Amino acid sequence: LTPVAADQVDIVIPTIRSLEFLEQWRPFFQPYHLIIIQDGDPTKTIKVPHGYDYELYNQNDIKRILGPRASIISFKDAACRCFGFLVSKRKYIFTIDDDCFVSKDPNGNDIDALAQHLKNLTTPSTPFFFNTLYDPYREGCDFVRGYPFSLREGTPTAISHGLWLNVPDYDAPTQLVKPRERNTRYVDSVMTIPKGSLYPMCAMNLAFDRELIGPAMYFGIMGEGVPIGRYDDMFCGWWSKVVVDHLGLGVKTGLPYVWHNKASNPFVNLKKEYNGLYWQEEMIPFFQSIKLPKECDTAQKCYLELSKLVKEKLSHIDPYFVKLADGMATWIDVWEEFNAPGAVLHDSS
Amino acid sequence: LTPVAADQVDIVIPTIRSLEFLEQWRPFFQPYHLIIIQDGDPTKTIKVPHGYDYELYNQNDIKRILGPRASIISFKDAACRCFGFLVSKRKYIFTIDDDCFVSKDPNGNDIDALAQHLKNLTTPSTPFFFNTLYDPYREGCDFVRGYPFSLREGTPTAISHGLWLNVPDYDAPTQLVKPRERNTRYVDSVMTIPKGSLYPMCAMNLAFDRELIGPAMYFGIMGEGVPIGRYDDMFCGWWSKVVVDHLGLGVKTGLPYVWHNKASNPFVNLKKEYNGLYWQEEMIPFFQSIKLPKECDTAQKCYLELSKLVKEKLSHIDPYFVKLADGMATWIDVWEEFNAPGAVLHDSS
Repeated sequence: LTPVAADQVDIVIPTIRSLEFLEQWRPFFQPYHLIIIQDGDPTKTIKVPHGYDYELYNQNDIKRILGPRASIISFKDAACRCFGFLVSKRKYIFTIDDDCFVSKDPNGNDIDALAQHLKNLTTPSTPFFFNTLYDPYREGCDFVRGYPFSLREGTPTAISHGLWLNVPDYDAPTQLVKPRERNTRYVDSVMTIPKGSLYPMCAMNLAFDRELIGPAMYFGIMGEGVPIGRYDDMFCGWWSKVVVDHLGLGVKTGLPYVWHNKASNPFVNLKKEYNGLYWQEEMIPFFQSIKLPKECDTAQKCYLELSKLVKEKLSHIDPYFVKLADGMATWIDVWEEFNAPGAVLHDSS
Repeated sequence: LTPVAADQVDIVIPTIRSLEFLEQWRPFFQPYHLIIIQDGDPTKTIKVPHGYDYELYNQNDIKRILGPRASIISFKDAACRCFGFLVSKRKYIFTIDDDCFVSKDPNGNDIDALAQHLKNLTTPSTPFFFNTLYDPYREGCDFVRGYPFSLREGTPTAISHGLWLNVPDYDAPTQLVKPRERNTRYVDSVMTIPKGSLYPMCAMNLAFDRELIGPAMYFGIMGEGVPIGRYDDMFCGWWSKVVVDHLGLGVKTGLPYVWHNKASNPFVNLKKEYNGLYWQEEMIPFFQSIKLPKECDTAQKCYLELSKLVKEKLSHIDPYFVKLADGMATWIDVWEEFNAPGAVLHDSS
C-alpha cells in the first residue's frame, strides 16, 4: 500500500452551510487542503473554522478566471464542484457534500472516510473478472479458486465511490413514496464494478485519481439556465465509466460510509429531475453501447470523442444536449490549458 | 415474495461422510427431500439419520439408469452431483457439500441458508445496471437515484450463489501460500453479478431454478479417467453465466453464508487442479467472447450450441475437450429424455 502524503490530496466541497460540518470532520480533514466552490449568491460569506488551509471560489472568481467560458460551470447546482477539480494540481481529489457527516462503523468507531478512499485508490481494481469474496487486496482476503492468475495483478483504480448511512440517495419519486426509509445496513465490502457495467455515481462521498481520470470528471451544465438539475454526478458517472472501461482502469464502490443527514426537498428535487428521469432512459443505453476508437488513448481524447457522440446521438432529445456537448468540449480545452506545464491561474478579463 | 412449498425443492448432496452434517442441518433440511449422489465405492453405505426423506444413487445405480451414457457423470469427484439435477423433478435445487455446516449471523443467530437462497431465487435480479446499495428488493432498500425506471422490474433469477465463513474457497497454490487464512468477514449483502461479467461459481453452497437454467447446470467430466478435477463448478459457472446472460436472466451472489469446516488437502488439490489452472487462462477469454445466436431461445439450445463451440475452439488445448464437448451434448440428450412429459426413470440395461 503506497502511503499518500497530505499534499497529494485536495478536498473539494461545493458549498458549506454550517460550521458544524468542518468542525465534525476536523480530526480527519484538517491536515488536508480544501477547495471550496461557493454556489449561489457570491456576496454571501462562507465561514470556514480556524485552522483550515483552504482556497475559496465564488461565481465572480469563476467568471474572472474563465471569462466567457465560465458558462460551462453550473450555477445553483452542486455541479459547480467540478471547477475545483479543474484548479486542483494534486493527484487525488476527495469531494464531499456539506450534509454528510462522520459515520460510525459497527464497532462504534468514527470512520475516516478519506483514509478508506485513499486505500481504495492506491490498491488495484479487478474489472475483468468478478471475485466473489469482494476486494481481493483487503486484509484476510484473496482471489478465490477459479480466478485467472493472469488477472491477479489487477489494474489501476481511477474512482472510489463511497456510500451513505441514514438518508439514502433516492430520486424524488422514491423520496416521495418512501419518505421515512433510512439506510441502516453497513455492508462491510469494497468491490470493483465490472467492466461494461454502468452504475449511478453519487458525488456526495466520492474520490478519484485526477491524473488518471480527471478530464472525464466534468459535471455538465445543471441548474440555472438549463432544464435539468441533480444529474451532474449521474452524467459524470456514465461517461467516466465509459472512459475507465476503455482505458482498462477500475472503479470501486462500497466503503467508506458517511452519515448523510438531510434529505433534500422532494418537490424541489422533482422539478430539477423530471427531465432527467425521462432522458436517462435513452442516455444510459447510449452510453452502454459506445465503443471508443483505439486512437483514444488518453482520458482527454476519450472525453472529446464522447462530446462529439453526445452532440451527434442525443441532440434529438432536446437542444440542451448541444449545449452540454459544447460544454464538454470546452471543458477539455480549459483542462488542457490549466494542466499545461507551468500553467498558472490568471484572469481571463 | 412468493412462498415456496417444500415439495418444489430438492436438496442435492454429492456425498455424506458424517452423521453430524445432517444432524446439524436438521432444523432446516428435514422438511425437504434429499437426493444423495454417492461418490466413490458403491459398496460402502452412507448413513442417513432417521426422519429424513431421501433417495440415494451410487455408481451402480447411475450405470443402470444411464447405460453407456453413464460416462458423462464424473466418478471420484463431487461433479457427480449433477446426476441429482437430472433426476430431480422439482423447480428449485439447493446443493451443498457435506463439510459445510450451519453458520451464525453477526447477531449470533443460526443462518437458514436454504431460506435465503429461496428468497434470492424468488426475487428478481438486476444484471443490466448496477445498484450501489446492492439488492434493491431487500427490505429497507431500493433503487438509488439515477437507476432507470424501465429496469426496476428486474429479470428472473436463475442462480443464487452463497458464500462461506471460516475456510475460504481457495485454489491449491493459494491454500499452500496462506494455509491459515480464514474468512471472518460477514458481508451483509446480496447482489446481482452484472451481465457480461463471469465469476468463479462454487458449488459448496449453491441454488438454482431448474426450470430456468437446469440444462446448463452440467458439471462436466472430472476425476477418474480425465486429466482434471475440482473444476466442475468453475466450468459450470462460466457456461451457465453465458446462458443466463443470453437469455436475459440473472445470477445473485452473497448471502447466505455457510460454515466451511475443512480445507481439503492442498497437495491432492494441486494434482487435480494443475491443468485447470493453466487451461482457465484460455477458457475464460473464450467464454467471455461468446455471442450466442438469436435462435438459441432456450437453455437447452444455448447449451447444445456451447458444446459445439467447446469442441471447435478448445480441442486444440487437449483431447480432453473433445470428450467434454461430447459429454455436454449427451447431457442435453439425457436431460430432454428425463424431462419429457411423463418420463420415468428406467433401467437402460
